[in-house]
Amino acid sequence: MGRLLETIASPADLKKLPVEELPALCEEIRAEIIQTCANNGGHLGSSLGAVEINVALHYVYASPQDKLVFDVGHQAYAHKLLTGRRERFRTIRTEGGLAGFPERHESEYDAFGVGHASTAISAALGMIEAKRMTGAPGKVVALVGDGAMTGGVAFEGLNQAGYLKRDLLVVLNDNEMSISPNVGAMSEWLSKKFASRTYNRWRKSVKEFLASVPKGPQAIEMIRHGINATKALVTPGILFEGLGFHYVGPVDGHDVKGLVESFQKLATFDGPVLLHAITTKGKGYQPAEADKATRGHGLSFFDVATGKPVKKPSTVKAYTDLFADALCDEMERNPRVVAITAAMLEGTGLIKAKQRFPDRTYDVGIAEQHAVTFAAGLACDGVRPVVAIYSTFLQRAYDQIIHDVALQKLPVTFALDRGGLVGADGKTHQGAFDLAYLRCVPNLLVMAPSDENEMRHMLHTSLQHEGAAAFRYPRGSGEGVALEPPRVLEIGKGRLARNVAGKPDVCVVSIGTTLKAALVAAEALAKDGMAVTVVDARFVKPIDEELVCTEAARAKRVVTVEEGCLPGGFGAACLEAFERRGLVAGGLAVRRLGIPDEFITHAEQAKQRAWVGIDADAIAAACRALVGDRKERGAA
Amino acid sequence: MGRLLETIASPADLKKLPVEELPALCEEIRAEIIQTCANNGGHLGSSLGAVEINVALHYVYASPQDKLVFDVGHQAYAHKLLTGRRERFRTIRTEGGLAGFPERHESEYDAFGVGHASTAISAALGMIEAKRMTGAPGKVVALVGDGAMTGGVAFEGLNQAGYLKRDLLVVLNDNEMSISPNVGAMSEWLSKKFASRTYNRWRKSVKEFLASVPKGPQAIEMIRHGINATKALVTPGILFEGLGFHYVGPVDGHDVKGLVESFQKLATFDGPVLLHAITTKGKGYQPAEADKATRGHGLSFFDVATGKPVKKPSTVKAYTDLFADALCDEMERNPRVVAITAAMLEGTGLIKAKQRFPDRTYDVGIAEQHAVTFAAGLACDGVRPVVAIYSTFLQRAYDQIIHDVALQKLPVTFALDRGGLVGADGKTHQGAFDLAYLRCVPNLLVMAPSDENEMRHMLHTSLQHEGAAAFRYPRGSGEGVALEPPRVLEIGKGRLARNVAGKPDVCVVSIGTTLKAALVAAEALAKDGMAVTVVDARFVKPIDEELVCTEAARAKRVVTVEEGCLPGGFGAACLEAFERRGLVAGGLAVRRLGIPDEFITHAEQAKQRAWVGIDADAIAAACRALVGDRKERGAA
Repeated sequence: MGRLLETIASPADLKKLPVEELPALCEEIRAEIIQTCANNGGHLGSSLGAVEINVALHYVYASPQDKLVFDVGHQAYAHKLLTGRRERFRTIRTEGGLAGFPERHESEYDAFGVGHASTAISAALGMIEAKRMTGAPGKVVALVGDGAMTGGVAFEGLNQAGYLKRDLLVVLNDNEMSISPNVGAMSEWLSKKFASRTYNRWRKSVKEFLASVPKGPQAIEMIRHGINATKALVTPGILFEGLGFHYVGPVDGHDVKGLVESFQKLATFDGPVLLHAITTKGKGYQPAEADKATRGHGLSFFDVATGKPVKKPSTVKAYTDLFADALCDEMERNPRVVAITAAMLEGTGLIKAKQRFPDRTYDVGIAEQHAVTFAAGLACDGVRPVVAIYSTFLQRAYDQIIHDVALQKLPVTFALDRGGLVGADGKTHQGAFDLAYLRCVPNLLVMAPSDENEMRHMLHTSLQHEGAAAFRYPRGSGEGVALEPPRVLEIGKGRLARNVAGKPDVCVVSIGTTLKAALVAAEALAKDGMAVTVVDARFVKPIDEELVCTEAARAKRVVTVEEGCLPGGFGAACLEAFERRGLVAGGLAVRRLGIPDEFITHAEQAKQRAWVGIDADAIAAACRALVGDRKERGAA
Repeated sequence: MGRLLETIASPADLKKLPVEELPALCEEIRAEIIQTCANNGGHLGSSLGAVEINVALHYVYASPQDKLVFDVGHQAYAHKLLTGRRERFRTIRTEGGLAGFPERHESEYDAFGVGHASTAISAALGMIEAKRMTGAPGKVVALVGDGAMTGGVAFEGLNQAGYLKRDLLVVLNDNEMSISPNVGAMSEWLSKKFASRTYNRWRKSVKEFLASVPKGPQAIEMIRHGINATKALVTPGILFEGLGFHYVGPVDGHDVKGLVESFQKLATFDGPVLLHAITTKGKGYQPAEADKATRGHGLSFFDVATGKPVKKPSTVKAYTDLFADALCDEMERNPRVVAITAAMLEGTGLIKAKQRFPDRTYDVGIAEQHAVTFAAGLACDGVRPVVAIYSTFLQRAYDQIIHDVALQKLPVTFALDRGGLVGADGKTHQGAFDLAYLRCVPNLLVMAPSDENEMRHMLHTSLQHEGAAAFRYPRGSGEGVALEPPRVLEIGKGRLARNVAGKPDVCVVSIGTTLKAALVAAEALAKDGMAVTVVDARFVKPIDEELVCTEAARAKRVVTVEEGCLPGGFGAACLEAFERRGLVAGGLAVRRLGIPDEFITHAEQAKQRAWVGIDADAIAAACRALVGDRKERGAA
């Protein structure tokens, strides 16, 4: 760790440094971030781009009394280093270590927990109102990336902030990327700033002209005023000015001394202000800066000298890649299939579709709501949109799924990546709720594949289905099975993945990729002489009531297992089926395994699965307990 | 029906009229809308304000080939009258009659079904892309109210539309109201348009000045250009220009001939265009225009001559009013309680709070996402926000509930009005899913009161609770019980609302306002000699497992009843509790009553309750069937 950084246990220590030392401190922070991301993975590019902004903010503002509200939190690593977490920084994103995002319970300096985009302005405005009401002293600053500005809730927040006219500082960290290069009219227009040579020429000639005109009639003064206002037209300020913000910028977001000056000036400004800082994602680390696709957004376990990955890539393709391949095949076969992502071309694998079918692949920016309603519009007239979104982010389009797609029975396919437990990204990113929140929506097929072939079949099935369909698959590698041509699955039909002769002791009903663990558990139990059948339900909705109930009745003991939340999830769907069929009345030993009713923190996926009790050991234990219980009761 | 309107069976007939006849037709349409709303209730004000826009759109565009996409659909009555539904118009919002909003299955002229705000731009853009892809001819127009423009998804749609640069016409119907007078910076700035006398003076003097300057140096030409651009600064156009739209307006939205001309001109324009039309909500009906609060947004059953209600108001106060009173009491007692609504000051009753506590009552516009994250920000620092939103609209803030509130255990209260079946507003507005989609969220209390006192207790309880809490109550009158002082309920404790001596035949477990029907059913069954206990569960989460399971085990037969969806709802929560306690293994006859897995169409609430089978008759029938089933099986 660098000599300056070593001296900083809290922002108070930072303030003792002369401003001249700050650039050197920034380099030390940068080195620490690079080394830690090399070891742990993490959001390298965004954090490197925001080092100077973080340092300058903490140099000028007095956190935690002043509230620094991060948006997404990809850019908060320097903040963590400066706020008493220096020693623990190298534990970030690992089990028991620091979280990858700001978390209120981790530090009093983390004013607002975050992980999803575009929330900072709304939260910061709430904090300002709270200070006004309680009389608590201090300022509030929201640090927002340009990608996050495309999210509707950011606009909603700006709209109220400009109206209330409180002293809110919004720092727009504009690296011209969100995760991938930005899209959308706003982005084009933010990037006008340096393109406009015409503007600079014009500005010069106008200056000369005005100097040559004698001060005089009112009209000239008004023109002078008009010209000043016009400047805003070719700078990015007007959108924010229009919404009631005072716009300052653009400024160099890597000039830490300049930033300190700007923040000092703005600290005394009344009303809402937006400071537009231009930064480079991945700044100061050549391999990241050179990565045009994402500028080192999420490099994982790399060699610091080269930026190259140090782990061998898995020989088994990830679900994300397998999905993207399958989607490209479908797009090849059917020219009416289109692909939609919300700022996740890389994350969802849709970059492949974009390259092969640029006219039929839409990146709408961080705008999940629009992505879904846009898909609904497409689906009204014979097009077959596939919306690929992480499970956790689809929460943001819940109303659009219900109101715009399902109610109208429109044929939209939802491909939910990162369903289930996601590992290092932790609480904010778990795909825990999808099966529950989708299952209550009428007119929607809800599926989860147990391997990559099943995923291919489900995509294919959804594209033949005259209605809305969703399927979710996990983060990480596929099961490594040989690929089959995709085929249409019968709607609402699961399969018996493991059968036994005679009366089974237990039936395990699995949905999605817990199947493998269920089969492993069944084999282990077989060695103990226990006869276990395993159902791969395939469909959460409509559930294969016939199969599930028949097998349940046959075994009289059922363990359901899912990588999803227990309340209202797949296991609950099984209970509902049992109720409808009168099996509850008849008596049936049931144990549901799944994610308990809490937010699961960061760790490796395997560890998380063990924690919540859905791995092979847990399934086997549940089967044993059920047989034991039942035997004790004398019912078996 | 007027003589002109009588001749119009489809838009083709409209096009035969000379343009000079259109103003007279508009008056006929207006009379028809007023009469129908007087009889049926409905969205009078918005529809009256948009008569000329509807007529002009259909006069110029060729629907259904050209797609007219309505936002919210409050303004679509004239459209329904012009598109083959003239004869059935007087059935609107009644059982078996026309829907109150556009519905795709009702008419090929209804390009997109709607009911929630801010979706039109996204859907329209999807339709344009579909036309591009399929080669289908025709234009696409989105008609959007100024209130809907405050919704984030509208901004997300504009952002992509400006980027894709397709031929999309957005008509901004600006009546300076959404439901109540608009709020937000955008609204302030849209309304600058006529305020700016300075601008008009300036424009005149600049014109004179420019005329006096000889054509000459390039600088002057550039100034001329600059001045033209500057004009946009004091008109509302710049926000849209900034997002890549060509802005036209403002124009008079009640000059039907002028509108026809505008649409004709714009029909040949390339790229995205926004036409800004100024209208008066309630136009042409004096009692509506005079109603400053909502301009006749939803007048119900009124006398046409006077605009006064013809039904006597219920002697029992509505839940909405009772909630507002209770909230004002809490705000009186505790200066840290604040109220938040999303453009629903009247609908949620919060207008009372706004009048009494203007500084602590926030209307954030149609921006549910922001409302919730703003509340989260407030709750970080000792303030107690109460977010009052209709159940159906809270769907739009689902991610914010999970990610910004529940994950951080912030003390935000969600008061969900219109929980359950809502009557005439129909499919888009049913509060059917709330119990299911909230129940899977960790760290969240979910409650439903069985009467107005319980609602008061739940509000009070939530405000003492150190975490997030939601309670939902229905549209319509309270139960008429005498009000008690609010008290703190024990978390997770229900109550036995009806007990019997000895062994009961059935236990009915009710949540929320189905309690009354459950008690009526129990009394009716008692006359037949059946002993029925009734549990008022109060808490959906955490469910009172002890009480529910004890009473279930005691009766051995359970009917659960809720005015919410069956999949994943309260009944499912009971099944989960039974599973955890081993009651499923022991055998328990269960029947769940609730809203089936479909979207329920418009009718009176009582009728809807009978349809889905949650009224007293249905509960009694379920109890009888359960006892009969059980007896047949010889288990009772």
